[in-house]
Amino acid sequence: MPLPKIGILNISDRASAGIYSDEPGQACVALLRAWLTTAFDLDYKIIPDDQGVISAELIRMADVSGCGLIVTTGGTGPAPRDVTPEATRAVIEKELPGFGELMRATSLNYVPTAILSRQLAGTRGRTLIVNLPGRPKAIRENFEAVFPAIPYCLDLIGAARLETNAEVMKSFRPKT
Amino acid sequence: MPLPKIGILNISDRASAGIYSDEPGQACVALLRAWLTTAFDLDYKIIPDDQGVISAELIRMADVSGCGLIVTTGGTGPAPRDVTPEATRAVIEKELPGFGELMRATSLNYVPTAILSRQLAGTRGRTLIVNLPGRPKAIRENFEAVFPAIPYCLDLIGAARLETNAEVMKSFRPKT
Amino acid sequence: MPLPKIGILNISDRASAGIYSDEPGQACVALLRAWLTTAFDLDYKIIPDDQGVISAELIRMADVSGCGLIVTTGGTGPAPRDVTPEATRAVIEKELPGFGELMRATSLNYVPTAILSRQLAGTRGRTLIVNLPGRPKAIRENFEAVFPAIPYCLDLIGAARLETNAEVMKSFRPKT
Repeated sequence: MPLPKIGILNISDRASAGIYSDEPGQACVALLRAWLTTAFDLDYKIIPDDQGVISAELIRMADVSGCGLIVTTGGTGPAPRDVTPEATRAVIEKELPGFGELMRATSLNYVPTAILSRQLAGTRGRTLIVNLPGRPKAIRENFEAVFPAIPYCLDLIGAARLETNAEVMKSFRPKT
Repeated sequence: MPLPKIGILNISDRASAGIYSDEPGQACVALLRAWLTTAFDLDYKIIPDDQGVISAELIRMADVSGCGLIVTTGGTGPAPRDVTPEATRAVIEKELPGFGELMRATSLNYVPTAILSRQLAGTRGRTLIVNLPGRPKAIRENFEAVFPAIPYCLDLIGAARLETNAEVMKSFRPKT
Repeated sequence: MPLPKIGILNISDRASAGIYSDEPGQACVALLRAWLTTAFDLDYKIIPDDQGVISAELIRMADVSGCGLIVTTGGTGPAPRDVTPEATRAVIEKELPGFGELMRATSLNYVPTAILSRQLAGTRGRTLIVNLPGRPKAIRENFEAVFPAIPYCLDLIGAARLETNAEVMKSFRPKT
């Protein structure tokens, strides 16, 4: 049986042009390796802030590559080149507003500019897509806040089961 | 003069097929009877998780039955059969995002999976429609959180006036 | 070089008919004069709760008048004449949901009816548009909550730089 697959989509004009190192994507990988006890395969890409390219890559990762979870980094602010939320909204079927709300509320504990973040999350078939910010420190704070709900969400949409190391990341599944 | 009418729409494939008892709907009725001192009539229905059926029933309760308040239970998660928010959004004229935000923030005090709830609320003419979750415990927590604002909202949209027993449920009307 | 321009749009049937004094708009001006050390020009208008008129005025202030920031007051509740959010959504390119979330969360510290507020914010080219409520007390509470993020947002969208008096209003610009 194939391993569960997780997509990491690092969205950044400068990283995709090789001007920046790929810290945001690597930060996500490091967190997943620390939290998950379930073995998984990665689908890892660095692409520019282009709405059409982002949407196409999300569709490929979900429908062709078969990722149960896709995490994006970057492109969620109000600047003209920030189009990750629009590209995500165009491909999801059900939006989950609670992810963005909790991420912004969490970041507000650190910076008042948290309200400028437009991260969203939603499902496309058996795939959950979650936008994260672009700075490694903010990625950790935000991913940590929402991750406890992710394994149960994947159960509900029929994606592969993920187990976490409860010492570093407690996931939660309600008793049904 | 007819009594104010409140619609309860229990949305559940299993309850509508008689496999589940109708706990969520009954939980709403019990809370309304405990909180309201105003006498009211009920329009009570159990229907399956079918988007078209839900929308049609919301329209009937609002436009034909004349409910000033409609409360739905169930169908607000990310699972494929969860379509209550979509069915609700299709029939409301003004969305009130604060209801969902407060319900999720409230449920986060109990379970991290609160961010998977997609409840929304909005108005259709002189009717306020509020989505509640499907589990009786979560129904109570969520309904209790938003109910203090409901009587004033009904005033603003021209629905019948509701009064509460302030010992168990304090509603709030700003002095104008 | 022209001064940065800020638009104040007081939306109220009664104020525009001269029945009410123009307190909400004046409250915004007083706060801006207290907080900003940067000199600015005002584009100030009082208009009725008419969706088409509001949208047209927002477009004029953004595209013709060149306001970097536009603040509206009023028209954000659930009543039939409250159409400011719809008029705003029709002209913005990027919605910033964090503004409304934080304003409602802030107002919930004062009144449970805060969840009836539908304020939103978003960008249109080099202009940030922010809806505020209509009561002067709520205007102050809400504007104070979100203002720390506004100067940095204006930087990101290419609007003129605003500086605040940190003794009364600390704005925040992350180190990049």
